[in-house]
Amino acid sequence: MKLEKRFREIIKKMKAYRYALSLIGWDSNTEAPRNTFKRRSKMTAYLSKELFKLQTSKEYQDIVYNLYDKYDELDDLLQREIKKAKRNLEKIINIPEEEFLEYTKLINDSQIIWEDAKANNDFESFKDNLEKIVKYNKKFALYYDKLANPYDTLLEDFEEGMTTKEYDFFFESLKHDLVPFVKEILKKTNNNYEELRSANFPKTGQKQFSEYLLEVFDFNKKSGLIKESVHPFTWNTSPEDVRFTTKYMENYIFSSIYSTIHELGHATYEQQISTSYNDTLLNGGTSMGIHESQSRFYENNIGRSLAFWETHFDKFKEIFPEQVKNYKPIDMFKASNNVEASLIRIEADELTYPLHIMVRYDIERMLFNNEIEVKDLPKVWNDKIEEYLSVRPKNDTEGVLQDVHWSSGMLGYFPTYALGSAYSAQIYYQMKKELDIEKLIKTNKINEINKWLKDKLHKYGSSKTPKELMELITKEKFNPKYYIRYLKEKYSKIYN
Amino acid sequence: MKLEKRFREIIKKMKAYRYALSLIGWDSNTEAPRNTFKRRSKMTAYLSKELFKLQTSKEYQDIVYNLYDKYDELDDLLQREIKKAKRNLEKIINIPEEEFLEYTKLINDSQIIWEDAKANNDFESFKDNLEKIVKYNKKFALYYDKLANPYDTLLEDFEEGMTTKEYDFFFESLKHDLVPFVKEILKKTNNNYEELRSANFPKTGQKQFSEYLLEVFDFNKKSGLIKESVHPFTWNTSPEDVRFTTKYMENYIFSSIYSTIHELGHATYEQQISTSYNDTLLNGGTSMGIHESQSRFYENNIGRSLAFWETHFDKFKEIFPEQVKNYKPIDMFKASNNVEASLIRIEADELTYPLHIMVRYDIERMLFNNEIEVKDLPKVWNDKIEEYLSVRPKNDTEGVLQDVHWSSGMLGYFPTYALGSAYSAQIYYQMKKELDIEKLIKTNKINEINKWLKDKLHKYGSSKTPKELMELITKEKFNPKYYIRYLKEKYSKIYN
Repeated sequence: MKLEKRFREIIKKMKAYRYALSLIGWDSNTEAPRNTFKRRSKMTAYLSKELFKLQTSKEYQDIVYNLYDKYDELDDLLQREIKKAKRNLEKIINIPEEEFLEYTKLINDSQIIWEDAKANNDFESFKDNLEKIVKYNKKFALYYDKLANPYDTLLEDFEEGMTTKEYDFFFESLKHDLVPFVKEILKKTNNNYEELRSANFPKTGQKQFSEYLLEVFDFNKKSGLIKESVHPFTWNTSPEDVRFTTKYMENYIFSSIYSTIHELGHATYEQQISTSYNDTLLNGGTSMGIHESQSRFYENNIGRSLAFWETHFDKFKEIFPEQVKNYKPIDMFKASNNVEASLIRIEADELTYPLHIMVRYDIERMLFNNEIEVKDLPKVWNDKIEEYLSVRPKNDTEGVLQDVHWSSGMLGYFPTYALGSAYSAQIYYQMKKELDIEKLIKTNKINEINKWLKDKLHKYGSSKTPKELMELITKEKFNPKYYIRYLKEKYSKIYN
Repeated sequence: MKLEKRFREIIKKMKAYRYALSLIGWDSNTEAPRNTFKRRSKMTAYLSKELFKLQTSKEYQDIVYNLYDKYDELDDLLQREIKKAKRNLEKIINIPEEEFLEYTKLINDSQIIWEDAKANNDFESFKDNLEKIVKYNKKFALYYDKLANPYDTLLEDFEEGMTTKEYDFFFESLKHDLVPFVKEILKKTNNNYEELRSANFPKTGQKQFSEYLLEVFDFNKKSGLIKESVHPFTWNTSPEDVRFTTKYMENYIFSSIYSTIHELGHATYEQQISTSYNDTLLNGGTSMGIHESQSRFYENNIGRSLAFWETHFDKFKEIFPEQVKNYKPIDMFKASNNVEASLIRIEADELTYPLHIMVRYDIERMLFNNEIEVKDLPKVWNDKIEEYLSVRPKNDTEGVLQDVHWSSGMLGYFPTYALGSAYSAQIYYQMKKELDIEKLIKTNKINEINKWLKDKLHKYGSSKTPKELMELITKEKFNPKYYIRYLKEKYSKIYN
């Protein structure tokens, strides 16, 4: 089919620009010297402009709409691809160019303004920008679909099939079942392993243990690598090139261990996607939520299990004999699962983490429903945290200003973090029916877990929706009850 | 002037593609995972094609020729730029597209064939490819200038103003004055510091000393970085982003020290070029020879001086107390200047190095004059090496197959290596008249040497020809006598 061939040609060109832009991004986040900033901006501006021209060209629009017109004649994969292409297209072309440029500038400027506001505990200086960001996001969502609730449109951008209806049900379940449970746990005055958690672990040893973890999780180093950066992240252009970073804090050993395993989860997902999608729009993980389900699965279900520490404590002790001479595997397990009512999301434990997300979801929802205004945010934030976690931020730096997301225009993104954990619990119970997970961990056969996930999930890339994948893997619809069950089982055992 | 504005616009676009392609190259030479190879080729092929289209577009050709038509009305810098643009253009557009593609494929294929041939000591398997490479290079040179000697055209590609006439004079001087001197030196049975040169120096310490060297040479880390790779090289996109690599061999300490200082020379040159040339064709170092003069100056004139070791031996000993407990600065100086008749160019010392280049120049010259054929190369090579160095390769791996250059189509490149050393000697004697080099080294003020080179040479980028620069700096024409004088002075002292 000639039309499809032309479609494929343009996609390939787009991929070449994305490849270049993406590598420039990897470079700038991991090693590029400081002074390259200005020149890099000029270079990426030109390349982005060429990509934008390609993505919005009359020719490309015609091809996409002509293919969409004969939707029923297309095979399944091309149907899915054209649907994605059409959505991507309509997310851009309905926005007046002038507004798009204004918004791009707003987002660029807001980064530094937010950074300064956070550093100076000064919400007021960030307020105007945030107001504009929210306003533009509402407006752009309405350009795309004037009948839908703008927040629903944004939610769907990050997680296909998820709107306020589905999220409301999800978060209501958590509120009802999890908040009281967390409050119970927080009352227990457990040994919180303060000494172990803040002991000094030299970086060279941490690096060595990270390298060891790559072996344990059977990461394919011929198609990837590990590096360092300020904020750990995973980067990929195709399954043959998947890289991730970690962060070494000498006075908090669990930071590098769980950053590494978390990113290994993202990276393993990307490495195991079929390369047949490389030149299509169906490459890469299917959604933020599914991606997060994989990173959380590796991090929490494997990495924070007792079986994990029973198996790998010897190696850990070999590297750090002095630091852990008074501890046993059970201590590592408990210390890495220590529950605390903290104020900062990224430092939160597995159990309290979803409550931090609930705060953000509640706030975004109210903002988009015009129930609150941006100026109310600091107070609303603190009230919500107190409601769920019984602690209150002393200032906005540890409150509403803590996350980068809003300043970069990511509204509707946060819920996918909690959803990912919930997906992973449901997948976990299904996996348990088919595999002896604990035994595989103990016999150093995590590669068999990788293989299971590859066959059930990873290999499909974006060729299936999150919903389709969940039903394919677990033979039922997504259900938050598994998440609640998982957390209750795990933490009841740890905290008796 | 409207024409100039349009010229500038296209140059900026070219630079964006080159920036991306260049970064992809840096990545692939320093860290990209192995399996990315195929996909990266596809992506770069597309980006290169876009760049090629831009570089050969009718619009660009018109602009360049129209500007060239009013050459006399242009200011000096634009004159030089247009001359370069015209040469670059005519190097490509006169080649039939089909032949260009065949040649590109030939070069790609030849890399692996040469690698295998070298590994298996099998010149025969590489012979046909090399014949074709030589044939194409002759042909392409004639497309560019049908009246000139093709080898002259190639020589000028790498070093403006240098043809066989100039190089013949240069190499004849070396043959006459240097070869007998080298033979004298080789007869001296000096202490060759075998033990020190092959002692074990752990990599962590070598890295620490490399970092120290960056301070000593006042390298600007905000605009650059150091990394590792198999073959050390310098990479840059603008003075704000200059990176280089080094190589750590645990049983040969001088490898990393002198790779680092050599590349620091290239890198300092690039960092000190005026940023006003960033969006022009006058950015970057002006020629291979001038570039090499800077790397050799830093490596040999500074790094291999007695003053250098007298100043930095303490630091070196602090890192490697055991390894150097029996040595003094003078030993480091002598060990790093040990002369040997070796077979491998990249392992050669400063004194015998130009003789290795002479072998290659003689051979290239004879090939292009049809005095010998590719099939004769192994024998001619061995005869020449024996003539100049009194040693004979046992096989082609350590003979004619040792260098990557010819397999990648770089014919006419080698002479710039020797020329660079000769330039650096002439610059050195001029610098000595204006600065107390030894004192600056001893008082840790290499930054003043950097400054001198910036003002006299570096800042100009490619806005002046090598010839103009040499005359500007030394107030006379390039003259090989300084090089011969420098080598004789230095090595007479070391070897009495």
